[in-house]
Amino acid sequence: MKKLLLQLDSDEHASAFDRIVAHDAGVDEVLSYGGVLPADATALVHGAIFTRGPDDLHHTAIWIGGSSVAAGEELLKTALDAFFGPLRVSVMMDSNGCNTTAATTVAAVASVEPLAGNAAAVLAGSGPVGLRVAELLAHEGARVTVIPPWRALLGDKWDTGRAARDQAQAETVGGKAGFSVRSVDGRAGLVEALGSATVAVSAGPLGVNLLSEEDWAIHPTLRVLVDLNPVPPVGIAGIKQGDVRKARNARTVFGALGLGGLKMKVHKACVAKLFDARDQVLDRMTIYDVARSVLA
Amino acid sequence: MKKLLLQLDSDEHASAFDRIVAHDAGVDEVLSYGGVLPADATALVHGAIFTRGPDDLHHTAIWIGGSSVAAGEELLKTALDAFFGPLRVSVMMDSNGCNTTAATTVAAVASVEPLAGNAAAVLAGSGPVGLRVAELLAHEGARVTVIPPWRALLGDKWDTGRAARDQAQAETVGGKAGFSVRSVDGRAGLVEALGSATVAVSAGPLGVNLLSEEDWAIHPTLRVLVDLNPVPPVGIAGIKQGDVRKARNARTVFGALGLGGLKMKVHKACVAKLFDARDQVLDRMTIYDVARSVLA
Amino acid sequence: MKKLLLQLDSDEHASAFDRIVAHDAGVDEVLSYGGVLPADATALVHGAIFTRGPDDLHHTAIWIGGSSVAAGEELLKTALDAFFGPLRVSVMMDSNGCNTTAATTVAAVASVEPLAGNAAAVLAGSGPVGLRVAELLAHEGARVTVIPPWRALLGDKWDTGRAARDQAQAETVGGKAGFSVRSVDGRAGLVEALGSATVAVSAGPLGVNLLSEEDWAIHPTLRVLVDLNPVPPVGIAGIKQGDVRKARNARTVFGALGLGGLKMKVHKACVAKLFDARDQVLDRMTIYDVARSVLA
Repeated sequence: MKKLLLQLDSDEHASAFDRIVAHDAGVDEVLSYGGVLPADATALVHGAIFTRGPDDLHHTAIWIGGSSVAAGEELLKTALDAFFGPLRVSVMMDSNGCNTTAATTVAAVASVEPLAGNAAAVLAGSGPVGLRVAELLAHEGARVTVIPPWRALLGDKWDTGRAARDQAQAETVGGKAGFSVRSVDGRAGLVEALGSATVAVSAGPLGVNLLSEEDWAIHPTLRVLVDLNPVPPVGIAGIKQGDVRKARNARTVFGALGLGGLKMKVHKACVAKLFDARDQVLDRMTIYDVARSVLA
Repeated sequence: MKKLLLQLDSDEHASAFDRIVAHDAGVDEVLSYGGVLPADATALVHGAIFTRGPDDLHHTAIWIGGSSVAAGEELLKTALDAFFGPLRVSVMMDSNGCNTTAATTVAAVASVEPLAGNAAAVLAGSGPVGLRVAELLAHEGARVTVIPPWRALLGDKWDTGRAARDQAQAETVGGKAGFSVRSVDGRAGLVEALGSATVAVSAGPLGVNLLSEEDWAIHPTLRVLVDLNPVPPVGIAGIKQGDVRKARNARTVFGALGLGGLKMKVHKACVAKLFDARDQVLDRMTIYDVARSVLA
Repeated sequence: MKKLLLQLDSDEHASAFDRIVAHDAGVDEVLSYGGVLPADATALVHGAIFTRGPDDLHHTAIWIGGSSVAAGEELLKTALDAFFGPLRVSVMMDSNGCNTTAATTVAAVASVEPLAGNAAAVLAGSGPVGLRVAELLAHEGARVTVIPPWRALLGDKWDTGRAARDQAQAETVGGKAGFSVRSVDGRAGLVEALGSATVAVSAGPLGVNLLSEEDWAIHPTLRVLVDLNPVPPVGIAGIKQGDVRKARNARTVFGALGLGGLKMKVHKACVAKLFDARDQVLDRMTIYDVARSVLA
């Protein structure tokens, strides 16, 4: 029986990236749907659960993607609501790569540095990926500070309303997950906010530099740095995009493309795992478990 | 040479159900198109008939589906018009599952009860599935009465214009196929209209009860009952959704999910049959022939 | 590793023709996208180049199609711009079949008749296919004359603005490729414009006759004639649609369907060739090289 992956994507054209990785992860056929709204998803999910008997449903799975994390979360909720009893298939949500990126980031850090009891900072971390990174760092026992981007950093791209919403969202998530949010108004404030952190993750924005090489080369406690910005100039100067567990200035660093290579392994392992059983939900913590075992 | 199924679906997102069943029926690749209008269909059908030589065209077939039976019938007509000479492929129309559901229903009844010369009633039977059931029952020699839903049964969902159109359509089809249409205005009328029927099929609407268990348990002639409504409350009380040739109150009954399992077998057998030759049209009667041989 | 073809099609529904031929050419999966605008293409191309390592990228390729040649050219440019360094895959553009049709036409002529130093005429040749035919004939050393359609030939379909744009475009392309453009105002002028041509290709329009059988049967120099119009009446009377290297009136002729069969072989060979290496651009001249070797 073929392994079928139902791809529900909130963007008009379903991600070619996700389709290709699914094939390389061993899926036989990807049933791609683009422009999927929650109202459309129920019928498509019913198509997945009503066609094969309960004993064969682990050969079908659902992938939820697209560029909008909020839209992906709505589609995930709709899919889970459409299941009933034994009529369910495994489902994974990774809109904008948010879950695999965050899980790979924290698993990569954890593979080189103990997190429990140490301080960690997530720079420009109030977006979906940054918040997931912070949640996972806190889950590992780190004392985490999320530092949102500030007005001067974003320049023309600054949006006061969005910044306020992101900040409120970060505080809500932090309240549950156990991390704090600290606003700064410039680079000096950012460096100061790093405090005694041993880990720093820069989570955006694209093509904007946050730390100079000197900022971290002379920092007294930093031991691991990860830059998630793949578009030059890099977010943390002095890290090369392809770096993976690279020693620079006596620290261990990861660049965006190097981390991306690890993420691809995690992504494939997650897709393969979907077909182990029919009742899995791969989201945040479960994807992190896969990342930990892939990067162990 | 791969078995390719061109899926032309009138809904925006082509049915995931039909795609998955096609794969399970042995199709190698399903070329899915959603939101297909008759104006689009000709070019797609030409793509199917102009690519492979006449001797290989039985490896390509067309599936027409979607939730609207009327749209599916238009697409079928367009596809057949696009063929010429030996440049044709086999095609099946099963919008809203109408043909496979009706064929499976009547084949299931015929597998347990002689129909020729006996009376049969199709309850709430003036929609596409009900009319197809009535046609096939008449084709087997039964004296068939179609009983449309009445105003009080539908409550808020009653639409006078649609009811009139359905009634007119039922009478037109019945005139050709040899069945009669009898309107009633309540449950008492419905039970009376059953008359001397040995077979009763309840064809809708979803989640609405038509007969109480007592209605049929004490009926003097009924021997086989089929309920096609999969949403509780069931259309014929006392039938369980999963029932397949189940003895209840000394009658043989079929529930919607039980019938659905049989329909899945018929559906798969039809898809497989499409690739036997390049010149088949699987619609109504031909799908019924497949159902008869599957359920023999 | 599966051979994956990313199909970027400018029409709402991606061509079923191109999908089926791709499967028959040995592609494992076609990732079809319809209604692709240049703005959408970059993300889809990134999906193709960022998923597999550089050493495996020859297992992925891009096909650009659709009915509009201008839209296809824009998509091709966008795709090539999205590549960088070793992150690139092979790509082919064949919107409206223009490149494979033109390449097959000239390769077919060249397989039966020397072109260098001889005269050739392309009738109704100012559209995309005609200009590509003229380019290739000139590339082979022929003295080529492109003769645009005239007002009376097109009747109601005549569009003065479009005719002027096509004429200007033909002169621009001819200036680079080394062919001339000669306007005529009726059939007599057309026959006169044939001059001492040994080759005549009729490139359109659909269902319109350009030459009578007498026009060419008594012509003193013509030796090879190709008619690309598949809709009766044929463009060159006396040629049968299925003709392939057929001797008629002591000339060698090709009809539109016969040429179409050769084109299919070229099309498949091109798709197969895409997977030989990751850095090929199959367009005009490179497709012609494939056609020459297929029809040698």
